[in-house]
Amino acid sequence: MIYTRISAEEAAAMIQNDETVALSGFTPNGVAKAVFRELSKRARREHEAGHPFKVGIITGASTGQSVEGDMAAANAIKFRTPFSTNKDFREHVNAGEIDFEDMHLGHVAERLRRGFYGEIDWAIIEVSGFMQAGSKYRGYLTSAGGVVPTIVRIAKHVILELNTFHSPQSRLLHDVYEPARCPHRLPIMINHVCDRIGREFVEIDGDKIVGVVECCIPEEARSFKPVDEVTQKMGNFVADFLVSDLKRGLLPKEFLPVQSGVGVISNAVLEALGNHPAIPDFSVYTEVVQDAVINHMKKGKIIDASCSSLTVTNETLLDIYANMDFFSRHVVIRPSEISNSPEVIRRLGVIAMNTAMECDIYGHENSSHVCGSQLMNGIGGSCDYERNGYLSIFTMPSTIKGGCISTIVPMCSHVDSTEHDVDVIVTEQGVADLRGKGPLRRAQEIIENCAHPDYRPLLRDYLRIAGGGHEPQSLRSAFAFHDAYLTKGDMRLAAF
Amino acid sequence: MIYTRISAEEAAAMIQNDETVALSGFTPNGVAKAVFRELSKRARREHEAGHPFKVGIITGASTGQSVEGDMAAANAIKFRTPFSTNKDFREHVNAGEIDFEDMHLGHVAERLRRGFYGEIDWAIIEVSGFMQAGSKYRGYLTSAGGVVPTIVRIAKHVILELNTFHSPQSRLLHDVYEPARCPHRLPIMINHVCDRIGREFVEIDGDKIVGVVECCIPEEARSFKPVDEVTQKMGNFVADFLVSDLKRGLLPKEFLPVQSGVGVISNAVLEALGNHPAIPDFSVYTEVVQDAVINHMKKGKIIDASCSSLTVTNETLLDIYANMDFFSRHVVIRPSEISNSPEVIRRLGVIAMNTAMECDIYGHENSSHVCGSQLMNGIGGSCDYERNGYLSIFTMPSTIKGGCISTIVPMCSHVDSTEHDVDVIVTEQGVADLRGKGPLRRAQEIIENCAHPDYRPLLRDYLRIAGGGHEPQSLRSAFAFHDAYLTKGDMRLAAF
Repeated sequence: MIYTRISAEEAAAMIQNDETVALSGFTPNGVAKAVFRELSKRARREHEAGHPFKVGIITGASTGQSVEGDMAAANAIKFRTPFSTNKDFREHVNAGEIDFEDMHLGHVAERLRRGFYGEIDWAIIEVSGFMQAGSKYRGYLTSAGGVVPTIVRIAKHVILELNTFHSPQSRLLHDVYEPARCPHRLPIMINHVCDRIGREFVEIDGDKIVGVVECCIPEEARSFKPVDEVTQKMGNFVADFLVSDLKRGLLPKEFLPVQSGVGVISNAVLEALGNHPAIPDFSVYTEVVQDAVINHMKKGKIIDASCSSLTVTNETLLDIYANMDFFSRHVVIRPSEISNSPEVIRRLGVIAMNTAMECDIYGHENSSHVCGSQLMNGIGGSCDYERNGYLSIFTMPSTIKGGCISTIVPMCSHVDSTEHDVDVIVTEQGVADLRGKGPLRRAQEIIENCAHPDYRPLLRDYLRIAGGGHEPQSLRSAFAFHDAYLTKGDMRLAAF
Repeated sequence: MIYTRISAEEAAAMIQNDETVALSGFTPNGVAKAVFRELSKRARREHEAGHPFKVGIITGASTGQSVEGDMAAANAIKFRTPFSTNKDFREHVNAGEIDFEDMHLGHVAERLRRGFYGEIDWAIIEVSGFMQAGSKYRGYLTSAGGVVPTIVRIAKHVILELNTFHSPQSRLLHDVYEPARCPHRLPIMINHVCDRIGREFVEIDGDKIVGVVECCIPEEARSFKPVDEVTQKMGNFVADFLVSDLKRGLLPKEFLPVQSGVGVISNAVLEALGNHPAIPDFSVYTEVVQDAVINHMKKGKIIDASCSSLTVTNETLLDIYANMDFFSRHVVIRPSEISNSPEVIRRLGVIAMNTAMECDIYGHENSSHVCGSQLMNGIGGSCDYERNGYLSIFTMPSTIKGGCISTIVPMCSHVDSTEHDVDVIVTEQGVADLRGKGPLRRAQEIIENCAHPDYRPLLRDYLRIAGGGHEPQSLRSAFAFHDAYLTKGDMRLAAF
């Protein structure tokens, strides 16, 4: 097999101002990292020399500091989609310097395929190995699926990053499948969490590959705070609620696959489910598998897991690679349009559990913007699951910032998941079951069960002054909580 | 075949206070009408006698005056889902008297099957005929699919309304299919608009059928205003936009199936598509087929149509019944969870076109509540299509009420479809293409292309004073337009 080995610097030098670069990966995991470490340096040099240098960056989900963080800090991002969790990126987005489309993670490959992002100049793909097969190459992906099948097909040029940090065996975890373009699509034939419908490799046109960058770079996955008393309470509430639904026959006795978002609350929920004696052994159909899933899998409580990324610590990742006989039978990594597919999520009956930043008294959720304007992270895949799941659960602490912010507000300052997509809200105060209830009954549930006691009188007052209608809102007072926080630093000082 | 013939009055007498009644139908069409004409009378009598009498009503979509209108006027509705277009109903909902859950039409059967609405006491089903098959009965549905397969299965008792207004041949239009309960579901194997995967009849447990009410009641379908200059302009903009996408290769050359909402704007859009020489002959995968579809089908421009209801004039309906050889090959009526299935909509690549009441400068849509509080109709199936369609288009006139209301506002007073689900906005002013654009670029497109010129300076002013951030909003001024309308009767008097 003959291929052109190039340095990361040489690769970075080929990318031109104003081009669009698509990357492998989903979360910091599986992202091609080597070329972008050089590209942000190059961007700085170009700017110092007085040359414009900005590129569009499209990936499966968020990336890490070495991609969007350093590129944002270098003022080198023109356009970005679909998601970010990076502080530097957030700062530059909120300064209005980056054109950012906050998009459902399950829609990105679709939108690429439809041509909504224009021409894709470069696809840079992290692989643990590759081989030639006629005029094609087979690339073996590492710890994530993302949008790789689509971008290697539509990009003009492909660069491979052969990252030897990953085991060449990583291919055994992958099920690579891309739906055909409409109107020639067929059903996605996944009927069980770990069904495999694709191949172990991504196929790449040999003519497109301009070079291979060899590197050995560990993953940049974040670690999360340990579960504390508040998150533990929320986790227990979720577990107890599901057990109650099981007993009432609202959930089938076999239980259903679980999706859980990313972060400390999600870990607490998984811990509580994993440790609850009345919850049957279960499977996970989610976008991101974290350490907690692997731990419960080793204990036998979690049977199977399907995801688009193993966003685990490097220690856990190496443990998976070392025990591939076991994990390749119980873990599948998929492209994000399959992990987040409405079709599959609804068919499997996934129990969706995500966190929100704020929730209003009628059940709308804000997952993305602080006080309406400032981007925090973005929606990620939360809406893919919440809209299509069997049960749609949102968790959040009832207050943050030492009680100065109530996450339960009269009206969300930004709406990402609407009242039509939210079944259950859980805070450390309790559980609001919104199913089959109109707005006024939902408000009752949310205020009395989920809001912090400090804020209940204020929320009841709001409802009283809000006037009539199906979903009473006083448009003059709807943001009184936010106004009190912005002007006085404490939502408890809200006045209507 | 032996069955118990009962009068509508006798049937109505069996329904008790506080029970939940589920009905066939989707829009006023196919709704069981005879029993409810008596039930609203009975409710009035019970109330006059000092007895409480309210029931829950669950259907596929909206119904007509003789069901929810008369029942609302009689103060006899306790709970209602998922949708309504009725004036009396709206009044009583907005008075806070009815617990109404505004729900995605594609989710209703799912939620019934999951048990979210509790026990269903009665299913009343309009049929054009029925026959015994062992211990089961086969019911032949009329002009709509709705949630019938699910409610006849889970309801405690079933009443059949044999409505001889409909042709006994109506069964030839139906494809009755209900997915299994999770975790035993399989793919919905529809790969082309008119694929049939089910049966011509709905199967009913004979033990459940308490009686058959014979009647002959025409449908109550509304007629819409004819297309005028403003709606014609919108229709032409949509058609031209799609032709441009075809030329740019963003739409496949075969074109894609079309979904179009209900009403005069949707008719104008269908007219424009039907008459445009550069639009190939196309198919319709939608929830409601109106007269315009049938007219273009007769001319050959529309090839096939799949729907959950033939909400056509009675004249057109009788024409369909009289030409069943033709129409049974080109029209399929499905249950609403299939017509509105995310799985099928995404697989087929449906072009989604719906109307909204207001749209904000970042692309969020309000489809349901006037000034945040007052219910107009509800979301219907718009979100099912807009989230999952190949292209998500919303149309609306730029102003209403003689220019006193701008449908383009700084912030929607209620959000039903979020910015993440809206690709294109069309008013009589022009087209905003939001694909692949962040909030600030979207605001530019919407203000400059879609807002009425009278309102553009005000919207530009808002953007200027809104402050910084990824999606700038001044929470103190976000509803200044609404406030000006509520206090001064004209949004043009808004001040920030």
